[in-house]
Amino acid sequence: MAFVCDLPAVPTVQQDDSVARITRWDFEPGAVTGWHEHGWPYFVVMLIAGSLRMHDGTKVTDVPLAAGQTYLRPAGVRHDVMNGSPHPIAFIEIEVKRPDGLVMMPQAGAAST
Amino acid sequence: MAFVCDLPAVPTVQQDDSVARITRWDFEPGAVTGWHEHGWPYFVVMLIAGSLRMHDGTKVTDVPLAAGQTYLRPAGVRHDVMNGSPHPIAFIEIEVKRPDGLVMMPQAGAAST
Repeated sequence: MAFVCDLPAVPTVQQDDSVARITRWDFEPGAVTGWHEHGWPYFVVMLIAGSLRMHDGTKVTDVPLAAGQTYLRPAGVRHDVMNGSPHPIAFIEIEVKRPDGLVMMPQAGAAST
Repeated sequence: MAFVCDLPAVPTVQQDDSVARITRWDFEPGAVTGWHEHGWPYFVVMLIAGSLRMHDGTKVTDVPLAAGQTYLRPAGVRHDVMNGSPHPIAFIEIEVKRPDGLVMMPQAGAAST
């Protein structure tokens, strides 16, 4: 069971290649991602402070997070995520599809940034 | 050669373990990281829109970036980074020290987020 809600969070993909998928997620208050399983390890970076309401299939947990707060999770996490804040929030999700690709990335793509 | 500046950017480490180091960098206008070489592949996630002024040892490049804009670079990048904006900026730097650790991370650390 997940949240009963028809207001979807809005994903905007910034990068999607063989190494990583980088997605910005924007949530209105009460918006949800929908139930999903993470196929890759992933980082989440909060852009706006707020509370993520997590549904793991049996229980609901509210997780208050500061702007800039970042966490790493392994592949296999299954959940539904709601914006439990009374204001819009956004985070960046970085899914690492091929960890060895992080090392093997060609220097040519580095530019100077 | 790098920037001649004595106003340092301020790093705040959020996580530092065998897998990753996650650091928030805050820059006043004109603040710099100082010359450095990246020992690991890394992601940068902008928290505040602004312009990064990059010095690669010979030339300077201004890179305007939006809030939430994210990029990935391989190990080996060497540069000095200045806040070229007229306002404070901040970004999150995620250095992946052991890419295979992203996959091998124990599920126990996953919580429900």
